[in-house]
Amino acid sequence: MKILILGGDGYLGWPTAMYLSRQGHTVGILDNFAKRRWELELNVEPLVPIHTLQDRAAVWREVTGLTLEIFVGDLRNYGVVDGVLDTFRPEAVVHYGEQPSAPYSMIDHNRAVFTQVNNVAGTLNLLWAMRKLAPDCRLVKLGTMGEYGTPNIDIEEGFIEINHKGRRDVLPFPCQPGSFYHLSKVHDSNNIRFACKAWKLAATDLHQGVVYGIETDETPLDERLATSFHYDEIFGTAINRFCAQAVAGIPLTVYGKGGQRRGFLNIRDTLRCIELAILNPGAPGEYRVFNQFTETFSILELAELVVGQAHKLGLDSKIEHIENPRVELEEHHYNPAHTKLLDLGLQPHFLSDELLGTMIGTIAKYKHRIKQEIILPKIKWNGRAREMEEMKLKWAGA
Amino acid sequence: MKILILGGDGYLGWPTAMYLSRQGHTVGILDNFAKRRWELELNVEPLVPIHTLQDRAAVWREVTGLTLEIFVGDLRNYGVVDGVLDTFRPEAVVHYGEQPSAPYSMIDHNRAVFTQVNNVAGTLNLLWAMRKLAPDCRLVKLGTMGEYGTPNIDIEEGFIEINHKGRRDVLPFPCQPGSFYHLSKVHDSNNIRFACKAWKLAATDLHQGVVYGIETDETPLDERLATSFHYDEIFGTAINRFCAQAVAGIPLTVYGKGGQRRGFLNIRDTLRCIELAILNPGAPGEYRVFNQFTETFSILELAELVVGQAHKLGLDSKIEHIENPRVELEEHHYNPAHTKLLDLGLQPHFLSDELLGTMIGTIAKYKHRIKQEIILPKIKWNGRAREMEEMKLKWAGA
Repeated sequence: MKILILGGDGYLGWPTAMYLSRQGHTVGILDNFAKRRWELELNVEPLVPIHTLQDRAAVWREVTGLTLEIFVGDLRNYGVVDGVLDTFRPEAVVHYGEQPSAPYSMIDHNRAVFTQVNNVAGTLNLLWAMRKLAPDCRLVKLGTMGEYGTPNIDIEEGFIEINHKGRRDVLPFPCQPGSFYHLSKVHDSNNIRFACKAWKLAATDLHQGVVYGIETDETPLDERLATSFHYDEIFGTAINRFCAQAVAGIPLTVYGKGGQRRGFLNIRDTLRCIELAILNPGAPGEYRVFNQFTETFSILELAELVVGQAHKLGLDSKIEHIENPRVELEEHHYNPAHTKLLDLGLQPHFLSDELLGTMIGTIAKYKHRIKQEIILPKIKWNGRAREMEEMKLKWAGA
Repeated sequence: MKILILGGDGYLGWPTAMYLSRQGHTVGILDNFAKRRWELELNVEPLVPIHTLQDRAAVWREVTGLTLEIFVGDLRNYGVVDGVLDTFRPEAVVHYGEQPSAPYSMIDHNRAVFTQVNNVAGTLNLLWAMRKLAPDCRLVKLGTMGEYGTPNIDIEEGFIEINHKGRRDVLPFPCQPGSFYHLSKVHDSNNIRFACKAWKLAATDLHQGVVYGIETDETPLDERLATSFHYDEIFGTAINRFCAQAVAGIPLTVYGKGGQRRGFLNIRDTLRCIELAILNPGAPGEYRVFNQFTETFSILELAELVVGQAHKLGLDSKIEHIENPRVELEEHHYNPAHTKLLDLGLQPHFLSDELLGTMIGTIAKYKHRIKQEIILPKIKWNGRAREMEEMKLKWAGA
């Protein structure tokens, strides 16, 4: 199948491209390298040095004999989207091409507006171009479990049956996202649902949990194929950040009480979920949501798991609770459904001591590259204006 | 009270400015005249010739001795929003400053993206500027009943109690908007709800029905104070359009079966609702939704009412059912709650033969200005690519 991956230079996009290429698909990548610019702007770097996309594609060809077709452009430019669809003629589009960080979206008005305009306009351009050029193409869009927030009822997969005053309907699950980034994903979901209805497009919206991991089946084939593992406050996810803190010999920083419960999944499972969504498409006009995670943990539980494994490896780790920079409940009900991908055949890689040990071991090889000053949270959801002004000046002109 | 009206040059913004000014408030207006540019672009004109905003403010001063402070600028420019809030220091902001047409948002990818970026980014800039400069200022934002769509359960005012698998919560009412314009309003609502929670802002989101009417208490004071009444397919609302068709002696065009049921209100009630929302603010951090309409009608019922009144006035009117250009249910349940504004003291002006007679009479004075060719729908929600391409070329470069 011809599969186009938007944002194929990123943490998940690049391993997805390799994985699908190795499964025999013809894979194209579109990226505008915006993420690398945000890294420069904020002075954060991936743990492992990352080669350019074009060089990584060349290494992939060298190692496997397989070609990845590279397109460079911005989804906000309709001409780019139209041109790439017209040239590559994908049968499936995997859409990772968005600003992916909640803290980034909370820095200032500039980043909040940028995040929403970038994500929403890019996806709208894609929908209009698909309508025109590829109405039968399968769209697999990356959303987030954070779209739901933490309601006091069980979270279902995208839709919920509501009985109200003697009548019933199945309606979109009410969302309470907790940052301008998470809101941008809700806006996307609403736009895509409408486009499917109006234009008979078929889309799967993967409401993904927090991804962890640094290796896939493909990354060990050559060290130049590594993916951009982040451990900083802005692009780093919880487990990845905790493992880096353990290796660096600094306390694992838990935001507030740490009772925040979330869904998690191994990066290998992300790739398989994408494949399952592509291979089992919905009907024309169908908008599906799959909740894409394999287990839930509280943040404190995760920190304790990492500390336990660090101790076994002889590292002197401990946990420190710090003031929560976010606006979120620290103790809440959390029982989201996640059966649809299992029904399609997902076989989860659960979090294990062995995996944590491997992650910590890999990170330890790059210990000298860890910048401790980029791990602690400086971006506050409801910070006072003066603090945010200082940050804005520091990162001016972005 | 110092009240800033965003979009104060428009159909509702201008009469609101006059009304609040006459109630003794100090009123400022911010507008960028974008609507007048869209009118040029699409070659549609308001029925009554409309003077410039500055000239209308001068007439207002001449007639009443009251001053309206005019600011010219675009909400998408954060510097404009910040500067106006800093200069005018409003105690309440009434936000009409958005692209208001569903058909406009469905023309092509350009207008869809423009509508969402314009509306969402403008509102985000406002929220960030309020956080910094006016956290105690009351925000009154115009949303639409179209945010809800037509679910098969009763629509509540913004939130719904859901009992699910033995647990309960009060959650945002699930929305199923039916155009990229309506979606932009849902995006706004989600963003404002979050900003209230994170930053303790107080906002009232008025989910307004379809407004009709051409006169308020203030417009008859001088004919140069008229508001921009539209009867075209893009900016005209149902009753206004039907009355114009009756006057023009052409059939009243009902989209599809006409069983589409909606909430309606008189333009005079819009002004009073805005005032009630300002005078009875929510608490800091509170995000409220009021459903702002006074009666529901099906589109066919409305057409029959207008035809009936037209016959009484000696006009030879009839109804024609045409293919529905929209994607919407033509027969559905519709029983939305609308008690909150009544509880605050709203005394509705219901639709009456007398009012229809007055509207038809006023329109008749300007019969020579009615352009029949701009009334019939050319913009199709799921039109074929070729039709839309022709339209895009015709309106290129917008």
